Amino acid sequence: MRVSSVLASWNDGATKRAVVEFVERTVSDAVPFEERVAVFDNDGTLWCEKPVPIQADFILRRLFEMAEADPQLRGRQPWKAAYERDYGWLGTVLSEHYEGDDTKVRTLLGGVLAAHAGIGVEDFEAQSDEFLRTVQHPTLGRGYLQCAYVPMVELLAYLEANGFTNYIASGGGRDFMRPITQEVYGIPRERVIGSATALEYASNDTGGTITRKAEADYLDDGPQKPIRIWSRTGRRPLLAAGNSNGDIPMLEFSHHADKPTLRLLVLHDDADREFDYTSGSAQALERADTNGWTVVSIKHDWAVVF
Amino acid sequence: MRVSSVLASWNDGATKRAVVEFVERTVSDAVPFEERVAVFDNDGTLWCEKPVPIQADFILRRLFEMAEADPQLRGRQPWKAAYERDYGWLGTVLSEHYEGDDTKVRTLLGGVLAAHAGIGVEDFEAQSDEFLRTVQHPTLGRGYLQCAYVPMVELLAYLEANGFTNYIASGGGRDFMRPITQEVYGIPRERVIGSATALEYASNDTGGTITRKAEADYLDDGPQKPIRIWSRTGRRPLLAAGNSNGDIPMLEFSHHADKPTLRLLVLHDDADREFDYTSGSAQALERADTNGWTVVSIKHDWAVVF
Repeated sequence: MRVSSVLASWNDGATKRAVVEFVERTVSDAVPFEERVAVFDNDGTLWCEKPVPIQADFILRRLFEMAEADPQLRGRQPWKAAYERDYGWLGTVLSEHYEGDDTKVRTLLGGVLAAHAGIGVEDFEAQSDEFLRTVQHPTLGRGYLQCAYVPMVELLAYLEANGFTNYIASGGGRDFMRPITQEVYGIPRERVIGSATALEYASNDTGGTITRKAEADYLDDGPQKPIRIWSRTGRRPLLAAGNSNGDIPMLEFSHHADKPTLRLLVLHDDADREFDYTSGSAQALERADTNGWTVVSIKHDWAVVF
Repeated sequence: MRVSSVLASWNDGATKRAVVEFVERTVSDAVPFEERVAVFDNDGTLWCEKPVPIQADFILRRLFEMAEADPQLRGRQPWKAAYERDYGWLGTVLSEHYEGDDTKVRTLLGGVLAAHAGIGVEDFEAQSDEFLRTVQHPTLGRGYLQCAYVPMVELLAYLEANGFTNYIASGGGRDFMRPITQEVYGIPRERVIGSATALEYASNDTGGTITRKAEADYLDDGPQKPIRIWSRTGRRPLLAAGNSNGDIPMLEFSHHADKPTLRLLVLHDDADREFDYTSGSAQALERADTNGWTVVSIKHDWAVVF
């Protein structure tokens, strides 16, 4: 396979060389196919996460609907922010989270869990699917399904062509992403690892139903990422790609003393074509520097973003 | 593919015909490959579970070691039963569980969770792997790895040859089975769904470690089976195979109004070649009768068992 064509949207340079050298070494070392596991964070790594993560827009619309239907909710967070379209409050949730204060995260999470409680998993997917296929990104002038990074989609295909099995290991909701990952990333639904709500099974005459409860099963972020990757795959990945502090344990875990490994950290430094921010990724960038992880500069390493 | 050769250990009759007709209909209806999902319970469905489940032997040996090292444990269940090799007490755990009384299950579970608490997941697998490759079944005169049912292994291969993806959805421990499922069943480790203990990640300079905690994450039995199948695969299976009451929700969930489906229930009715028991499966057998699920009689449907 000619690298120039498969990674066509990557500029020549040290980053692209690191990727190609890693893949070529995996092949030349004849690492068994079943060990060629690669894991990717989703928001900010495979697709855009600004001004808010795509799933946040999905949930905010649902909270808005709930507040429209029930005026009492309009005075309570997170319904208040959703109803008033107060992105400022929502922005502070993330920034305070990255600074270690999860008070607002818990408030938000209560709303997030209530937003789709009691809905069957198949109905939830149909809602997510419709949202993702119809809604436009607020500033980029493209639909959400077109917000995946073309160079990363090329990387996924390049890895697969070289015997890798790609997984998504996202802090976002597993069931939110599943309906579109095959089409957008070539990653089938069973290889989506992500945060999950607790589920409930009820028997009936037509195959039973699984519904979402108003409680989290687990939040797939930070130290949960290696745990969930192990639980799902039973392996340590060779390659891990992320963009934020929550990805540090996953990148760290993708370590082998005796096999090629690659840790990628996407740096958002391109205000013209995407966004320019390092909030939530300062520690990860430090670790990249200390440990020799490969930083992917959107501005310098990608000829095309979308 | 000639059915006579792939299902060579199945006697001709209604059961074998039901299996073949289901597979041929799936193919002739051109059900998309990604929807051809089949799930199998393990203990009593893919391999022998008597006189005690194979994993119980593994755990009892560890409890015995613990009681040898610490005399105080010898007076406490389940260490007492393990130390005195009191299979009677252990038998009542299961029989009382099937009658709805889980008092002893909780006592046993406390011991089970303590038995391997604090061990790294990779070390745990190495112990399980060694046990399964070296220990003999207590009465069948064969090693544990030779306790898989040949007709079921043939069925797995027949399904795979027809585009199915097979998963194990076991009440047994996921991490206990993983080291041997590829070799014994042709099912790779990432397609093993089973009970799981809670895990903990700790950072270090060599890729971090994941260790087992002394608490369950979930017990993959009864209504948890469809939940865990959905969580892992994002699909309703076309085929489900089990042998006990704990498999009822999984069999029920494998329902499609518009696609071929097959529900198999293995009936242990062959005291000469294996074991003869229905304890723990009475309700499942009733449901098979009511709902037209296919009962697989070991005595009548299998020409060879092991």
